[in-house]
Amino acid sequence: MNNRTLVKHLAALPDGPVTVAGWVETVRDQKKVQFVILRDESGAVQLVNPATRELDPESADAASADAFAVTEEISALAHGSFISVTGQLKHDERVKLGGLEVKIASLAVVAEADPETPIAADSSLDKRMDWRFLDLRHPKQNLIFRIQTTFLHALRTYWVERDFVEIHTPKLMASASESRAELFEVGYFDGTAYLAQSPQFFKQMAQPAGFGKVFEVGPAFRADPSFTSRHATEFTSIDAEMSWVDSHEDVMQMHEELLVAGITAVKEKHGAEIAELFGIELEVPTLPFPRIPLAEAKQIVADRGYVIPRTDEDMDPEGERQISAHVKETYGHDFVFVTDYASSIRPFYHMRHEGDPSLTNSYDLIYNGVEISTGAQREHRIDLLVEQAKEKGLDPEELEFYLDFFRYGVPPHGGFGMGLARVLMLMLEEHSIRETTYLFRGPTRLLP
Amino acid sequence: MNNRTLVKHLAALPDGPVTVAGWVETVRDQKKVQFVILRDESGAVQLVNPATRELDPESADAASADAFAVTEEISALAHGSFISVTGQLKHDERVKLGGLEVKIASLAVVAEADPETPIAADSSLDKRMDWRFLDLRHPKQNLIFRIQTTFLHALRTYWVERDFVEIHTPKLMASASESRAELFEVGYFDGTAYLAQSPQFFKQMAQPAGFGKVFEVGPAFRADPSFTSRHATEFTSIDAEMSWVDSHEDVMQMHEELLVAGITAVKEKHGAEIAELFGIELEVPTLPFPRIPLAEAKQIVADRGYVIPRTDEDMDPEGERQISAHVKETYGHDFVFVTDYASSIRPFYHMRHEGDPSLTNSYDLIYNGVEISTGAQREHRIDLLVEQAKEKGLDPEELEFYLDFFRYGVPPHGGFGMGLARVLMLMLEEHSIRETTYLFRGPTRLLP
Repeated sequence: MNNRTLVKHLAALPDGPVTVAGWVETVRDQKKVQFVILRDESGAVQLVNPATRELDPESADAASADAFAVTEEISALAHGSFISVTGQLKHDERVKLGGLEVKIASLAVVAEADPETPIAADSSLDKRMDWRFLDLRHPKQNLIFRIQTTFLHALRTYWVERDFVEIHTPKLMASASESRAELFEVGYFDGTAYLAQSPQFFKQMAQPAGFGKVFEVGPAFRADPSFTSRHATEFTSIDAEMSWVDSHEDVMQMHEELLVAGITAVKEKHGAEIAELFGIELEVPTLPFPRIPLAEAKQIVADRGYVIPRTDEDMDPEGERQISAHVKETYGHDFVFVTDYASSIRPFYHMRHEGDPSLTNSYDLIYNGVEISTGAQREHRIDLLVEQAKEKGLDPEELEFYLDFFRYGVPPHGGFGMGLARVLMLMLEEHSIRETTYLFRGPTRLLP
Repeated sequence: MNNRTLVKHLAALPDGPVTVAGWVETVRDQKKVQFVILRDESGAVQLVNPATRELDPESADAASADAFAVTEEISALAHGSFISVTGQLKHDERVKLGGLEVKIASLAVVAEADPETPIAADSSLDKRMDWRFLDLRHPKQNLIFRIQTTFLHALRTYWVERDFVEIHTPKLMASASESRAELFEVGYFDGTAYLAQSPQFFKQMAQPAGFGKVFEVGPAFRADPSFTSRHATEFTSIDAEMSWVDSHEDVMQMHEELLVAGITAVKEKHGAEIAELFGIELEVPTLPFPRIPLAEAKQIVADRGYVIPRTDEDMDPEGERQISAHVKETYGHDFVFVTDYASSIRPFYHMRHEGDPSLTNSYDLIYNGVEISTGAQREHRIDLLVEQAKEKGLDPEELEFYLDFFRYGVPPHGGFGMGLARVLMLMLEEHSIRETTYLFRGPTRLLP
């Protein structure tokens, strides 16, 4: 259909013949006139047809027979059917929907919809997920994925302009990359493989490989049995890793610039639509983002009257909301880097402070109250790395292939991993990553 | 190390103090002078040090003690160690390597390499794969992934500028997406999931979802036990799908424009390096690419004297080389679309010719003799789709979630899937996708 016009391009056209194609959003079948709202990937337009309700077979000419047929067809249109319409475009400022309409000359139903639509506006989230392909037809859902496209393209452009190399690390591994607790097993010919929980080891491999700076946007898998609004068994992970960092501070600087680039691009391209559909005035965060060491953050949260109910030294989700609220009140900022996490709650590969091995060169990035990312400088000194692995109860022999990366020369390095669906959820003030994931995967969800 | 200068930026600097950092490629430890070739992610530079071989402890001042220490350090440098060097940059056209050198003032070894390097220039491909992180240090290997970065960014830019939406389809599925023969099984809590063999069903889902045009670059998994130079158990698949195509011709037009955009960007950014390291003058293909129906292609191959040893109606690899050679000789073109494959050798979801259901609206794209992609218009009419599935011996009940996509309205659509590593292999005249994959995965390879 190379001759069809996207709905968003109609406004710029003069009155005259056009062809549009999309799906039927609503039909108002009035006695004297019929209205169809047709939506395509770019917007919605009103189609109009003066109804020809009766056909006198004796006096009818071909034209009135056609008009009668079109009227019948519109009356029979099912919500959701995909149609192609040729007609006359007419600009008319009385038309609420975009100040224009198309007077139907001919209409073809290219794929009829089953008239029993399985979901409605008030369907539960779970039911909407069952029929995700219909759910995604809504302008809000559609906008989420156009925002995702713009956001990721801005991130990649930031990286490409700075000579980062794109890598595609394998998702099939011979061993765990993070805790063994949340590992999916794959039957692999006569043996077993595991699904990558993160690209951690392999993006680090790019450092002794001399790639300098790398990025990847790809799936990661966690056999996590939880059902929160923030967890999935498969998610899109945004990862970067850079050589020659002096500390996690270098990683944070790249990370915050990257997010500013992404959010700026989203605001420029979709700001008006976001305001209209989500009621949000998207703000580009200022640089630098606030940084607060974990110990200080916990004190601030305690001073606000919240006692973190954990025996380890970590934050909990409410603690993250509290420190985020504090930062918003104090600095007017949506983001905060909480830094210098205790070694006891960080993986073995995080580098520890030179003077105080109880702390790590690491951070979590919190956005509107929820953690979206963990970053760190990595330990690149093989003897310390082996020691830290043992201390965490890991068997260095199982990690042999990874430890080899550090035996033939390796630069100091650091990076982060960030969950795409979480960023979008928080940007758009949605309540679950199910809304910002194309097809969510959870312990009880593998379909569609 | 925010003060380090990338080697590629040295040429533009005036003589004076600089800091460079990278790994030791070679050391020439001569009696009176020492040379170190240091390589970083951007290039190589010669470091020079006038050797101070002896230290008279009586007369020695601090400066000569330092000089003696540096000399000793250089003598002890292991190939591959990562070092940071501060010194004086001096432009000198007698220096073969870039017409400049850095006179070492101070040198720090940040990570010492084990002196026993496990691979050499003449190591086998399999051995090089064992030590991929060392193999990737070579300028040729490094260039492959910078080319990949440029190529993919150009593809995505082409799509983003044309309003394609980026999607991330799930890799965990409840059923097979292609033939059940090459399916990986995953233990999924109390049940079983399967790894996506392609994003086929889910990129098609974007069509009834009203996304219009979509793309994805992500992993696909095939439990393929073969060991050819073109097959892997995990590969990066480049996918696109568009609504409202009239036939596969619309898909081919987008596909060829996309490749021209990608190859143009690679030639502009890396053409000189490709000529230097691969001995190839990369050519941007002309538009349109030649199109030859399969039946005609087989006749041409037969006329060249090659009898395809297959009982089905498909091409074989030698047939593909032959038709490619014919196209190169006749049209001077590296690409050819072989079109209109027989329905018997295509999946059930390929649309068949309106007048002749024995042929499909499909194509394979062949590049320098090897198939890199399959594209097609999809059957979107639910009754025909069910019929074709049954004809292929599939059980429509197992496909229920997919068939639902076609029951509530769907536009005509088509798209393609293309293997990234194959494109790069053929572009650079490499002999195996192992060379153009960051970490290859095959039946006997899960490490590193």
